[in-house]
Amino acid sequence: MGRMAPVATHEGPDSAPSATTSGLFLVLEGGEGVGKTTQWQRLGDALRAVGLDVVAVREPGGTPAGDRIRALLLDPASSLAHATEALLFAASRAQLLHDVVEPALARGAVVLVDRFLLSTYAYQGAGRGLPMDSLRRVNALATGGRTPDLTLLLSMPLATAQARAAARGVMDRLEQETAAFHERVSAAFTEALSPAWQAEHPEVGPVVAVDADSSVDAVTVRCLAQLVQRWPARFRDAARAATGALVGSASDTAAHPSAPATS
Amino acid sequence: MGRMAPVATHEGPDSAPSATTSGLFLVLEGGEGVGKTTQWQRLGDALRAVGLDVVAVREPGGTPAGDRIRALLLDPASSLAHATEALLFAASRAQLLHDVVEPALARGAVVLVDRFLLSTYAYQGAGRGLPMDSLRRVNALATGGRTPDLTLLLSMPLATAQARAAARGVMDRLEQETAAFHERVSAAFTEALSPAWQAEHPEVGPVVAVDADSSVDAVTVRCLAQLVQRWPARFRDAARAATGALVGSASDTAAHPSAPATS
Repeated sequence: MGRMAPVATHEGPDSAPSATTSGLFLVLEGGEGVGKTTQWQRLGDALRAVGLDVVAVREPGGTPAGDRIRALLLDPASSLAHATEALLFAASRAQLLHDVVEPALARGAVVLVDRFLLSTYAYQGAGRGLPMDSLRRVNALATGGRTPDLTLLLSMPLATAQARAAARGVMDRLEQETAAFHERVSAAFTEALSPAWQAEHPEVGPVVAVDADSSVDAVTVRCLAQLVQRWPARFRDAARAATGALVGSASDTAAHPSAPATS
Repeated sequence: MGRMAPVATHEGPDSAPSATTSGLFLVLEGGEGVGKTTQWQRLGDALRAVGLDVVAVREPGGTPAGDRIRALLLDPASSLAHATEALLFAASRAQLLHDVVEPALARGAVVLVDRFLLSTYAYQGAGRGLPMDSLRRVNALATGGRTPDLTLLLSMPLATAQARAAARGVMDRLEQETAAFHERVSAAFTEALSPAWQAEHPEVGPVVAVDADSSVDAVTVRCLAQLVQRWPARFRDAARAATGALVGSASDTAAHPSAPATS
């Protein structure tokens, strides 16, 4: 009957994944150039590799309507008012929640989103200067109250991130913003790590920093470590496999990269 | 120095239009099939014909970004969540205010909009069932507090309007909605005519009914009569010209269809 027991959000160290595992809503955040989209792809791959049901989506976009909105938002030729921009992000978000996130969570999947509420607060709030109160109200309609279970905030010095973004070549409409804009965005992300800020913004859920100023492999391992710390039964296998494959046998867990799923 | 005097919103009967005339924000509203878009075009033509600076725009749309949003909203293939729909309308509205309406009002033009806030409340609120409180907050970001000076609500029996809409042929995504949906929308428009509703929704501004169950010409004359009643100096010439051209010399004003602009 253990498989029928309700699974708490924070699994005990001995609980095993089961068919009744509740869905998990995970968000990757960070400014331009921190490697967020790369990690989003690699985390999704690592979790799928051990058989987890993973739905990886990105904001804006992730639905047919959302992709049309994304094209409008990121087109360097678009000349959007700040309020328009915020409302378009919220529209894409509402569709993503409705079509993809809620159904996936309902069946117990791990949903991995590239950007969510925190990006809105950082880019449209701190960056554009739109009133936080307006942004929160608009996004309450978009999310219907859905809160992430965890946000991994990829962090590195702003100068490092900007050099990486510049090296990537063609920049979209948001990436072309001024240095002052990106400094405000970066400061907003950092502020979101404080317990006081998180207490005042319960709709964002918990936010933890992941040091992203390292090799791609090391950052993936750090992201997985954050997940294992909170949900050990669900993510232990993925972390072992990824650590083994990525950094060799330098640690105890890596000594058993293909250990079977046991409690 | 009379030309430098400030012009009140409600012009006195003897005041003449001047270079310092303030902008006027006029809205045409009504359900499917009432002839709203036809009247919007004809009113714009009638006002321009007597030399008024008229900016006629429609919702959703009216800007490059708004037209892309309009295509998404009206595409029968779009499968939009209700919140997405409301946020997209608001996004188009924000861009229209920013790019077109505010600059036109600032230079003293007459802005004539095909649909505005009241349509949001009727279609997304009463029709879709979205919470009115959410819609008001979302649209406060979109409008920045701009309130129409007058909304002309074209009114006719719902059955008549539906027969006209059906006769028009291909229907868009909103027009394809159920009869119950259109009944809720129609009831919401009617409710907006009550003084109590208008007192509770100051952001919509004054709303007056125009009987639209008549010939196209007669409805245009009725719309112009509403404008003349409120702003006689500005609209008298247009009403005279249109009444003369449309219904012959049946009235006193029509006897001077091309009278010069005098006080």
